[in-house]
Amino acid sequence: MALEKVNIAIVGSSGYTGGELYRLLVNHPRVRITSVTSERSAGKPLTTIFPHLTGLTDLVCEPLDPDSIAQKTDFVFLALPHVTAQEAASRFHHLGKKIVDLSADYRLADPTVYEMWYGHCHQHPELLRSAVYGLPELHRDKIKKASLVANPGCYPTGAILSLAPLIKKGFVDLTSVIIDSKSGVSGAGRGPSLVYHYPEVNEGLMAYKIGIHRHTPEIEQELTMLARQPIKVSFTPHLIPMNRGILTTSYAGLNAAADTESLHALYREFYRDEPFVRLLDPGEFPNVRNVRGSNFCDIGIYADSRTGRVVVVSAIDNLVKGASGQAIQNMNLMMGFPEMEGIKIAGIFP
Amino acid sequence: MALEKVNIAIVGSSGYTGGELYRLLVNHPRVRITSVTSERSAGKPLTTIFPHLTGLTDLVCEPLDPDSIAQKTDFVFLALPHVTAQEAASRFHHLGKKIVDLSADYRLADPTVYEMWYGHCHQHPELLRSAVYGLPELHRDKIKKASLVANPGCYPTGAILSLAPLIKKGFVDLTSVIIDSKSGVSGAGRGPSLVYHYPEVNEGLMAYKIGIHRHTPEIEQELTMLARQPIKVSFTPHLIPMNRGILTTSYAGLNAAADTESLHALYREFYRDEPFVRLLDPGEFPNVRNVRGSNFCDIGIYADSRTGRVVVVSAIDNLVKGASGQAIQNMNLMMGFPEMEGIKIAGIFP
Amino acid sequence: MALEKVNIAIVGSSGYTGGELYRLLVNHPRVRITSVTSERSAGKPLTTIFPHLTGLTDLVCEPLDPDSIAQKTDFVFLALPHVTAQEAASRFHHLGKKIVDLSADYRLADPTVYEMWYGHCHQHPELLRSAVYGLPELHRDKIKKASLVANPGCYPTGAILSLAPLIKKGFVDLTSVIIDSKSGVSGAGRGPSLVYHYPEVNEGLMAYKIGIHRHTPEIEQELTMLARQPIKVSFTPHLIPMNRGILTTSYAGLNAAADTESLHALYREFYRDEPFVRLLDPGEFPNVRNVRGSNFCDIGIYADSRTGRVVVVSAIDNLVKGASGQAIQNMNLMMGFPEMEGIKIAGIFP
Amino acid sequence: MALEKVNIAIVGSSGYTGGELYRLLVNHPRVRITSVTSERSAGKPLTTIFPHLTGLTDLVCEPLDPDSIAQKTDFVFLALPHVTAQEAASRFHHLGKKIVDLSADYRLADPTVYEMWYGHCHQHPELLRSAVYGLPELHRDKIKKASLVANPGCYPTGAILSLAPLIKKGFVDLTSVIIDSKSGVSGAGRGPSLVYHYPEVNEGLMAYKIGIHRHTPEIEQELTMLARQPIKVSFTPHLIPMNRGILTTSYAGLNAAADTESLHALYREFYRDEPFVRLLDPGEFPNVRNVRGSNFCDIGIYADSRTGRVVVVSAIDNLVKGASGQAIQNMNLMMGFPEMEGIKIAGIFP
Repeated sequence: MALEKVNIAIVGSSGYTGGELYRLLVNHPRVRITSVTSERSAGKPLTTIFPHLTGLTDLVCEPLDPDSIAQKTDFVFLALPHVTAQEAASRFHHLGKKIVDLSADYRLADPTVYEMWYGHCHQHPELLRSAVYGLPELHRDKIKKASLVANPGCYPTGAILSLAPLIKKGFVDLTSVIIDSKSGVSGAGRGPSLVYHYPEVNEGLMAYKIGIHRHTPEIEQELTMLARQPIKVSFTPHLIPMNRGILTTSYAGLNAAADTESLHALYREFYRDEPFVRLLDPGEFPNVRNVRGSNFCDIGIYADSRTGRVVVVSAIDNLVKGASGQAIQNMNLMMGFPEMEGIKIAGIFP
Repeated sequence: MALEKVNIAIVGSSGYTGGELYRLLVNHPRVRITSVTSERSAGKPLTTIFPHLTGLTDLVCEPLDPDSIAQKTDFVFLALPHVTAQEAASRFHHLGKKIVDLSADYRLADPTVYEMWYGHCHQHPELLRSAVYGLPELHRDKIKKASLVANPGCYPTGAILSLAPLIKKGFVDLTSVIIDSKSGVSGAGRGPSLVYHYPEVNEGLMAYKIGIHRHTPEIEQELTMLARQPIKVSFTPHLIPMNRGILTTSYAGLNAAADTESLHALYREFYRDEPFVRLLDPGEFPNVRNVRGSNFCDIGIYADSRTGRVVVVSAIDNLVKGASGQAIQNMNLMMGFPEMEGIKIAGIFP
Repeated sequence: MALEKVNIAIVGSSGYTGGELYRLLVNHPRVRITSVTSERSAGKPLTTIFPHLTGLTDLVCEPLDPDSIAQKTDFVFLALPHVTAQEAASRFHHLGKKIVDLSADYRLADPTVYEMWYGHCHQHPELLRSAVYGLPELHRDKIKKASLVANPGCYPTGAILSLAPLIKKGFVDLTSVIIDSKSGVSGAGRGPSLVYHYPEVNEGLMAYKIGIHRHTPEIEQELTMLARQPIKVSFTPHLIPMNRGILTTSYAGLNAAADTESLHALYREFYRDEPFVRLLDPGEFPNVRNVRGSNFCDIGIYADSRTGRVVVVSAIDNLVKGASGQAIQNMNLMMGFPEMEGIKIAGIFP
Repeated sequence: MALEKVNIAIVGSSGYTGGELYRLLVNHPRVRITSVTSERSAGKPLTTIFPHLTGLTDLVCEPLDPDSIAQKTDFVFLALPHVTAQEAASRFHHLGKKIVDLSADYRLADPTVYEMWYGHCHQHPELLRSAVYGLPELHRDKIKKASLVANPGCYPTGAILSLAPLIKKGFVDLTSVIIDSKSGVSGAGRGPSLVYHYPEVNEGLMAYKIGIHRHTPEIEQELTMLARQPIKVSFTPHLIPMNRGILTTSYAGLNAAADTESLHALYREFYRDEPFVRLLDPGEFPNVRNVRGSNFCDIGIYADSRTGRVVVVSAIDNLVKGASGQAIQNMNLMMGFPEMEGIKIAGIFP
C-alpha cells in the first residue's frame, strides 16, 4: 500500500541548493515534486539546468507565479536570493502553504538586526514573528508546529551545533568565542565571477569578510538564546579549493578545568537522541569527506589543559546539512514524517 | 507490507568498491547486508574503515570464511583482488551462492588470454565457462540466468558502451578503433603509493600502461563478439586529478559517409530501452560531473566529415556504473528484481 | 659590466599570458619592461591585476596607444584577443618595432583559412605574408630574421612537436593522425563564465569543440609543410581540473613495422640540438607536473606492434612553452640573445 | 667578470624541500651545487627522483658521507629528518662547514623542550647553544654571524611573522593568542600513506594534532622572546586539498582599542625594511595563490571593534618562505650575499 504523498514546489531551482533539493527528494517516499521555478529557464526542462538529473525528471521550469504554483502544491521550498524570498514567502504564506525558506530573510528574529547586516528594511515583520529558526537540534518542537521555517545558513549550522552544549551548560567564557570556518566553493552559489573562476580558486586559499560576514548575527542570535545573555563572536570564513563541505574550528576559554573525556560526555548527553549529529571518539576529529552528500554533522572535541581552552571541530556538507538536507529534515518535521525520511543516506566517499 | 529481503555478503569490504557497494545497498529495499569481510580489519566495526558510514551500520568485519558466510547469506559480492577472487568465487559457487565478482578473474572467456595478460594460470576454467560477462546492455538475458557474473572493468564499461552500436551494425573500419580514456584516481584503488600521493597527482596528468593495460583484452573480447570477427584496439588510459569518473574518447573510421544525426539515430535505437544509458543530443558531449555517484553512462557522438571519422565520448562514474553500481544492476537481474531498484539515484552535483 | 637591455612592452597585460610574460621577464637579464597596457585597468598599478607581482614592479597600466608605447620600447609582446591583435600588430610594425604576437591572428599563412575558422576577414594580408610561425624547433632561422612572429597556439605546440619527426621522415600514414589533447583551465583565459566556475570544473572532465576547434588548421598547416602534402587530423581538446598543462596523446598508423627503440632514435636525432625538448627514455611517458612553470616540452613514444600504430605523448605548460615562455624564446632568437636566456628555469614541483 | 661561487651540498635531496632547494639554486648566480645526497637513490641521477630537473643538472646522488662531501663543498643544506639531522649537523660543523638545517633539531634553544615534544634526548646540546633560529626578520644580525642556522618550521614562519609586531609592541593580551593554520599537502612530505592518498585528501578537509603539534613550542619560544614573558598559544593545523601554501589566521585580544589603520601603521613600521614581507592594504587579505613559488610572506590585518580582537592573516609558500627559500635567504645572509639574491622571483600564478 503506497504512502500518500505531499505535493512539493522548489521555487528557485537553478542554484546549487535547488538542484540538491531535487537530488534528495527524488527518492523521498512521501514527496511528489510538482513544480520547479526558474525565471531565466522558464519553459525549459529542468535538465537543461541540471543535466545530472536527466532520466529522473520530466519537469519543465515555470516562472514564479505563487497563485498558479499554489494550486498544485502543498509545500514550498524557497531557494531564492534574500529580499526576493521575503516577498515570495509572504505570498505563499497567505495562500496557506507551508514553507521552508532557504534564504536569510526570516532567520533573524529582530528586524533591526536584519536591516543592519543586510542593508534592507524587512517588509514583513509580522510574518517574521511567526517564523521558526530551522535548526532541529535546538528547535524541533517549534518546527513541528511552524508554517514558515527559516532554514539556517551553512556556516551557522556547523558553528552553532559545535558550541551549543558548551554554551547552554555554561562551560565557557562567553567573551572568548572564536569561530574559524572553512568552506568549499559551492557555498558561494552558482553565479560565475573572477573570484570563483577555476584557476583563481584552485591551489588558492583565503579568508574573506573577516568580522563582517552576514552569518555572524545568526550565530550570535542562537548562542545568545542558549546562554540567556548576549554573546559576540569572532567569525572568520575561508574559501577552500573543494566543491562541498564546511569545517568549523571553534575556540573558547573554559570556565573551569575540564578534560576531553568530560566534555565528550557533555556532548554525548546533549546530542543523545539526535539522528544527524555524530560525535567522534575523544582524539578523533572530523573530515568533511565523511559527510559529503549526507545530512550528518560530525563533531570532535579537544580540551587543551595547556591553554585552558576547548577546541571543537565540526564538519558538514554545506549543501546538505548546511542547506537542502536540513530543509528536508525540517519538512519532515513540519509534515509529521519520520525525521530521517529520504535523508538517511550515506555520504559519497571518496 | 514489507518486501522480502535477500541476505548479502560484501567480501573484501575495505577498498573503494566495497565501500561503494555499502553506500548504494544501504537504501536498497530488497537487500539486507549480513556479512562484510576484511582480513586486516577483522573484528573491527566497518565504520573504522569507512567513517562516512557511521550511524548507518553496526556491522563488524569478519575474516573471509566462505562456510561461515554462506550460512547467513544468499548472495555474494566479491570485491577482492584478482587471483584471490578466483578461489573465493569457486568456494561460494560450490556452496550454492549466487555471485557477482568485481575482479577481473572471470571476465575473459578464454583462459589462455587471461594467462597472457594477468600472468597467472586460471585455476577454475570450468567455472569460468559458466561465468557471464556482466554488461547488462549486451548480455541481459544471460545475466538473468547466471549464478556467477563477472562484473566488467571500469574502462571496458565506458569503452564498450561507446562503440557497441557502431561495431554491431558495421559502421566502422574494424582496424581503426582507438580508445583514449581518462580516469579519476579512485580507479587505482585505496592502496597508498608514491604514484598516488596527493602532491604527485594534483596538478598532474599522465598516460600510463600505453598499449599494455589489462583492460585491453576485455574490450577486444566484447567488441570482437559484436563484430563477429577479431578486433584489436589501441587503448590508452590516463590518470586525471579527480576522485571519480572516466571519460572515454573513441575514434574510428567510418565505412561510409554518415552525419551526426544518422549516427545519433543508430544509438537511440540501440539503447532505446536501456535505463542507464543517456544519449546526449547532437552537438552535446558528456561530462563526468553529471554522472558522479550515479549509475548512468552518458554518451555523445560526432561524425567528422572532414576526416571521415566518428568520435564517441562516454562518461561514467568508475565506482558506480564502472563497478559497484553495475554489480547491483547485475544482482537485480540475477534476483529478478526491477533493474533500477536501489540505483535509480541522481548523481551528486557539484 | 651590465648587459645592455632591450625595452619591452607587454600589450594586453591583464590575462594569464600577460602575467606569465611578466613573471618570466622579471629575471631576464637583457630586458627592461617599460610599458604594460590594460584598457580596463589603465591608471592602476599592474599589481592590482596581479597581486603576486607585488614587490617586483611599480609599473602602472596604460591604455593601448601604439605611438606613446613606441617611444619607450623596442620590442612588443601582444597578448591581446585575436582581431584586436591584428590591428595592433600592424600599428607597431609600421612604427618599426619587432613583435611577438601571442594571438592567432598571424599564425595561418592563408588568409582564407583564417577567415573560414575565425569568421573574420584578415585586414592585413600583406603583413601576414611577412609573419613567421614561431615554433623555434621548426622555424628557428626564419624567426631570427623576422620582425613579426606569430607565437603558436598552446595545443599546436604540443601536437606539432609530438608528430614532426614521424611526419617529416615519412614514418606514418598521413590519413591516420589522431590528436587527443587534455588541457588545464588557464588555457581558457581569465574571463569568468559558468563553464569555468570552480564547482562546475572541479571533479569534472569533458571534451569540447570536437572536430571544430580553431587550433586544428594551425596543426594541419605545420604538419602539411613537414609532409609536403596535405594532412587532415582529428583533433579533440579536453578540459581537465587543473590550472596548467597540456598533455597530448597522438596516434598514427606506422607505414612499416618499427619498434619503440628505433622511433626513439628518430626523435633523438630530430631533437638533438633542441634545448627545450626533453625526450624520455623508452617505456617512460611525460607528466605535465614535470613541466609546470618551465619552457620544456617532454615527449614519450610507444610503438605498438599489436596494432601497427605509434602513440606519442607530449607535455607542456600551456602558459609557458604553450604561450609566454615560447614568446620569450622567440624574442631571444629575434634579438640575437642566447636562446635559453631568462627561461632556463626549473619547473615548480610539486 | 663572473662572480665567485660558493660550492654547495644539498644533503637529503629526495624530499620536496630538497627538490625545491635545487629549483631555486639552479639560477642563483653565486652558487654551484657540487653534491646532492640520497641514501635510497645513491648512484642514480638526481633526475630519477626529480624528473622536472631534467636538462638542468647532471648530478648523481651520493650517500651521506660528510668527509667526502666536505672536500667539495663550503656550505651545506641539511634536508634530513629530525634526529638524523642532529648528527649530520654536528659532523659538518666539526668539518668547518657553514650549515642551514631545515629540520627541527636545532630550533628549540632549550633541549628539555626539544625532548618533551620530540621524544628524543638532544645529543649535541653544545652545538645547539651556538645555533641561531633562522627567521631573518627577527634575527638577521645573528644569522649573519652564525655557522649553524636552524631554519624555521613552515607553520612557525607564517605564525610568528603574523604576530611579532603586536607582541613585541605589547598591543595584545598574551593569554589570548589563537593560531589557526591551513596547509597544503606538500608540508607533510613525500612519503606516501593512506592519509595523503589522493582520493582521501582531495575534496577533504580536516584539523589534526590539535593542541599537540610539534611546531607549537617553536612558535611559543619566539613569541616569548618578543614579549619578554612566557606565552602559550592555541595552535591548530589543518590539511587543505592543495599542493602548496600555508594560510594562518591568528586571533588575539587587544589591550586597548585600536583600529585597523593604526595596526596597519604598526606593521608597516615593523616590516619597513623587510624585502620579503608584503603588507596588504587595510581591507585586503592574503591568498596563498599570490605567494606560490615565491619567498614572500603576505600579511593582512583587521581590528574588530565589535569583539575587541585583532585578526591577522598571513600567507606563505610552505616550501619556499616556509622552508627552502628561507634557507637560501639565510645562506645569503651567512655568506654576505645580497639577501634577495636568487630568490627575488615572482610567484607562479595561476
